[in-house]
Amino acid sequence: MSIVLYDLAGADPDLRFSPYCWRTRFALAHKGLPVETVPWRFTDGALIAFSGQGKVPVLRDEETVVSDSWAIAGYLEDQVPTPTLFGGATGRAHALFVNAWADAALVGGIARFIVRDLLDVIDPKDRDYFRTSREARFGRSLEAVQDGREDRLAAFRELLQPVRLVLRRQQWLGGAAPSYADHIVAGTLMWPRCASRFVLLEDNDPVAQWQERMLDLYGGIGRAARRA
Amino acid sequence: MSIVLYDLAGADPDLRFSPYCWRTRFALAHKGLPVETVPWRFTDGALIAFSGQGKVPVLRDEETVVSDSWAIAGYLEDQVPTPTLFGGATGRAHALFVNAWADAALVGGIARFIVRDLLDVIDPKDRDYFRTSREARFGRSLEAVQDGREDRLAAFRELLQPVRLVLRRQQWLGGAAPSYADHIVAGTLMWPRCASRFVLLEDNDPVAQWQERMLDLYGGIGRAARRA
Repeated sequence: MSIVLYDLAGADPDLRFSPYCWRTRFALAHKGLPVETVPWRFTDGALIAFSGQGKVPVLRDEETVVSDSWAIAGYLEDQVPTPTLFGGATGRAHALFVNAWADAALVGGIARFIVRDLLDVIDPKDRDYFRTSREARFGRSLEAVQDGREDRLAAFRELLQPVRLVLRRQQWLGGAAPSYADHIVAGTLMWPRCASRFVLLEDNDPVAQWQERMLDLYGGIGRAARRA
Repeated sequence: MSIVLYDLAGADPDLRFSPYCWRTRFALAHKGLPVETVPWRFTDGALIAFSGQGKVPVLRDEETVVSDSWAIAGYLEDQVPTPTLFGGATGRAHALFVNAWADAALVGGIARFIVRDLLDVIDPKDRDYFRTSREARFGRSLEAVQDGREDRLAAFRELLQPVRLVLRRQQWLGGAAPSYADHIVAGTLMWPRCASRFVLLEDNDPVAQWQERMLDLYGGIGRAARRA
């Protein structure tokens, strides 16, 4: 396999902060697959027009093109079965719930803490698009969305309680070893880690401690990632 | 196996509404294991003292005693591997996330809609205990907790969005076939279905449609369950 990944980048091309692209980065590292990443900005639609849609991650493997992080994980598992991301069909089906929870609850929860910060790290050419599209989504200015975030931290941390409960019984979301469930949640947490200086978790939180272990996996690609 | 399950009951001994006991009931049915259920009330601690703790479900299988619905599911899977509840170690690890989400988000979310209604269906001898313990937990009267529930329905339905997203891609939380992930969520939803007449989901909600399919599984044990 010769894999190219189109990966959301900031004004600094080495700043990579997409919660979905990070899921793919971790999955590729888990499989031991080398990857060439191409920095992509929100307004670079033409660069991935070949994928038939407008969002990253987009993975190109020779003649094969796969977009959407969940579809990419399935593709990688089918092409390179070991080390496994899912541990079989039911493990894959159950991981989809973790993916859906991350998309429906976690991404939106985090956005309210960092969406204005993102404006400072994205490429200048993306700023108008980003502000307009996100303010339409939230129905408020980016500044208003992010305002008062310190007061909302306790509720955000409560949102992560399912992860905490799992980590009481096992070391990884995947059980005795990391799985794509770990990549989903840790990948999502790479977004605030890389794009903002706002600290969401307390150091003694079991979720933060698990995140530290995730940062060190796969040669420490998470730990080494450029931060704002 | 000769299995006895201590199962939370109401004033009507045939009214069974524990979200945790229902997870076990579905898991037993999935395995095709017959079970004798013993009605248990909140103040019947002495009846399950042999389990070394005070909550149901408690499963007794000859000389073996297992309490806690998650532990019981693991026990059943280990004793009777097929049909599988988890599809392997990673599937089991991932199902724990669904279990943790149901416990941390779904049970609390539902409680705020039905906790006062529960008082009307539980055994009269349980009422003082139930009101005192639950009001201490919520810091308000049961009536105050439940008040204004119609206005909170939209937020509750949003909480179920991860389930909805999964059902867009597969028929069951377990994938092509039901798994313990289905039992966890459907079991939890048996609680409001059996203990209250308040309707939480709209008929055209994909979650409600999946719940209808769950009610018909295993000879329709969910469908046939006594309701308040």
